[in-house]
Amino acid sequence: MKDSVIHLGLAGLGTVGSGLIKIIQENNDWIERRLGKTLKVKTIMVRDLDKARNVIPSPDTTFTTSMDDLINDPEIDIIVELAGGIEFPRTLITRALGSGKSVVTANKALLAEHGPELFELAAAKNLGLYYEASVAGGIPIIQTLKESLAGNRIKALTGILNGTANFIMSEMSEKGEDFATVLGKAQAKGYAEADPTLDIEGIDAAHKLVILIRLAYGQDYPMSKLTVEGISKVEQFDIILAKEFGYRLKLLAQVRDKSGMLHAGVYPALLRQDHILAKVDGPFNSILLEGNAVGPVMLYGQGAGDLPTGSAVLADILALARTNCVPNNTGFLETRLPQAQILAPELTVFRHYFRFTVVDRPGVMASIAGVMGEYNISIAQVVQRQYAPNDGVPIVFISHSAQMQNVTAALDTIKKFSFVLDPPVHYRII
Amino acid sequence: MKDSVIHLGLAGLGTVGSGLIKIIQENNDWIERRLGKTLKVKTIMVRDLDKARNVIPSPDTTFTTSMDDLINDPEIDIIVELAGGIEFPRTLITRALGSGKSVVTANKALLAEHGPELFELAAAKNLGLYYEASVAGGIPIIQTLKESLAGNRIKALTGILNGTANFIMSEMSEKGEDFATVLGKAQAKGYAEADPTLDIEGIDAAHKLVILIRLAYGQDYPMSKLTVEGISKVEQFDIILAKEFGYRLKLLAQVRDKSGMLHAGVYPALLRQDHILAKVDGPFNSILLEGNAVGPVMLYGQGAGDLPTGSAVLADILALARTNCVPNNTGFLETRLPQAQILAPELTVFRHYFRFTVVDRPGVMASIAGVMGEYNISIAQVVQRQYAPNDGVPIVFISHSAQMQNVTAALDTIKKFSFVLDPPVHYRII
Repeated sequence: MKDSVIHLGLAGLGTVGSGLIKIIQENNDWIERRLGKTLKVKTIMVRDLDKARNVIPSPDTTFTTSMDDLINDPEIDIIVELAGGIEFPRTLITRALGSGKSVVTANKALLAEHGPELFELAAAKNLGLYYEASVAGGIPIIQTLKESLAGNRIKALTGILNGTANFIMSEMSEKGEDFATVLGKAQAKGYAEADPTLDIEGIDAAHKLVILIRLAYGQDYPMSKLTVEGISKVEQFDIILAKEFGYRLKLLAQVRDKSGMLHAGVYPALLRQDHILAKVDGPFNSILLEGNAVGPVMLYGQGAGDLPTGSAVLADILALARTNCVPNNTGFLETRLPQAQILAPELTVFRHYFRFTVVDRPGVMASIAGVMGEYNISIAQVVQRQYAPNDGVPIVFISHSAQMQNVTAALDTIKKFSFVLDPPVHYRII
Repeated sequence: MKDSVIHLGLAGLGTVGSGLIKIIQENNDWIERRLGKTLKVKTIMVRDLDKARNVIPSPDTTFTTSMDDLINDPEIDIIVELAGGIEFPRTLITRALGSGKSVVTANKALLAEHGPELFELAAAKNLGLYYEASVAGGIPIIQTLKESLAGNRIKALTGILNGTANFIMSEMSEKGEDFATVLGKAQAKGYAEADPTLDIEGIDAAHKLVILIRLAYGQDYPMSKLTVEGISKVEQFDIILAKEFGYRLKLLAQVRDKSGMLHAGVYPALLRQDHILAKVDGPFNSILLEGNAVGPVMLYGQGAGDLPTGSAVLADILALARTNCVPNNTGFLETRLPQAQILAPELTVFRHYFRFTVVDRPGVMASIAGVMGEYNISIAQVVQRQYAPNDGVPIVFISHSAQMQNVTAALDTIKKFSFVLDPPVHYRII
């Protein structure tokens, strides 16, 4: 990349691709001041050549539907993959690296599922495969883990990584509306997709968490081993009760290191209302991590959107364009990272929130508390309320630290009691 | 730096130097996994060879009192300057760069005052001069501005950059104690130095702000042009009143871009209590910035301490040791950055908080409000209270946006009224 122009080949011209082009147009003289080179989007691969576009690249930008026009053009320095999906970008990136081109991608699903093979190929070719935009939009968490905190062992990392889910939870908490109502509003505002499954079932956050674990620990933690629970069953009633106990309910992505064994998952969990992540509302993302040298560090910003995500894509392009040094893709030298040492989910320890809806009769509290005691779950707080969504009486327990296998066993026992009306509700407390 | 060992020459073995050595000792296998090389502190320059140390580097580390033993040793790859002061490190860094060695420093005062000449020399020699530890301890704000957000124009940046001042303000706010009491506690805890001038008068934060302005705007903003107001005159009474209006009083460092003109300063200012920086308490640091692409981004962490600051020094060492690519010292290609285009302080616009202590008699409110109106200062809120620290009656005004020259003129007029008992109190509102 010694030319005074860096030629980009772009696959996909949706939200992020359009954002990238807008930023390059608006800030090109600024970028040139930093880089000494001009960025030029030479070729854009799209599915439909005739579709109307809300950005207009420079007049000499070529549109194509053929991957070959990106791969086989010797003038193109960097391939920017913003198409989404799995198989197409997997093929594109594999071929791009194979033909000696560095790659920038925002594709969290691809990197979560096929990261190891792609990073191995990039290492073999000594090429860059950069992905700042794949996690938390414009927040520079990839660079921070890969470089700024590289000398730290990360003890724990907790993130609000899905803006859609966070917006829904914030609205339910502030407006007192139920899940379905708020989801509809989020869809109307464009915060949630027509099919919101990836966002509300925690899958998108899980993809991002796999990427962050790789960066923080240098280990591959397979998606299939993650605990993943979404927010689609969250009831407004628990949000209110949690607030009364001084907590906020949030969809969190978390990894913790327990003596070299990792446990990671995505789940709605209670946070103390004075916890720094409890204040991250609406479509914002945030990551709090704990390094063994740096201590707690928190990053906060917009996790999605054309310009914030485009800003992250641009950071990667600049890093690749700036110098001809050895790329740093994963932060580690191994071409294939080891598999994570995983602590079995049933052995993980949390504090817990339980809500049981029961028939109001003598002995009920004693029966439930008895089962808790039997399974070594020590109770910190109990509240019994006089009203409930559906006739029964709610009892809420906040426990001290307890192992998940005991929690599961206790819930299995308690839900079989004839006085328990609804399936028990359970959340971890962070 | 092709060897399997990177040899460091360290000047200064105080808090940060000791922290760096502790981290290298604790995390060396981890660093090797990322770097493929071992870090070795070969030589440490100290003032007193006989002083007792609370860290013990490896047995073959050499201690010296001579700068020549760092500069003239061809085996030393990187000079790490953690000695503090101005003239000694200025000479050391100049000689180190002159002899072909890259430099890592945590010295904010030196970079604020002599950055231009040192960066020019580093550029001429094509060597690294890295300084992540100079601002906000372990928070990776230098790397973030230099690389991750390099494609953004920064519209504004607001930081809590001095942990000592922030601790004092937090304690005054929470414990209801006065400045002198809390300063004494901070000194006892080691958060404040015996001579706290640099911290409490805003000078340390101003040094850091000059460095951040250079990174964000690629312009040199001379220290002498900064507005710098400290916290030593802050009264507990205004903290209480500000709280009643829904604000927190914090020592802020801020730069704003108004149509290409910069205005920057360090001053105690009121923040809405729901502002994200209002929650940054105790010795923590935080930086909130607004990029034209990324939008708002906030970073938070420990701004001082042996391990957090050592973590930042280590990040720089790793960046320099990792590759042999062209160093990126300032984020811009110019060897000498242009002088900042500065908006005169009297033309800056803020909302304002005023407190006047007055004799309780008819016409006082009308007289003050009349002067305000005369100087085009529109009043948003007024509170008159029945008690005051020293006999007079306090009147607090919160204004809408008003130019500083009008504020200064109004204060000059009002303080001359015979019914005004004490010097007026005035803070900006962010």
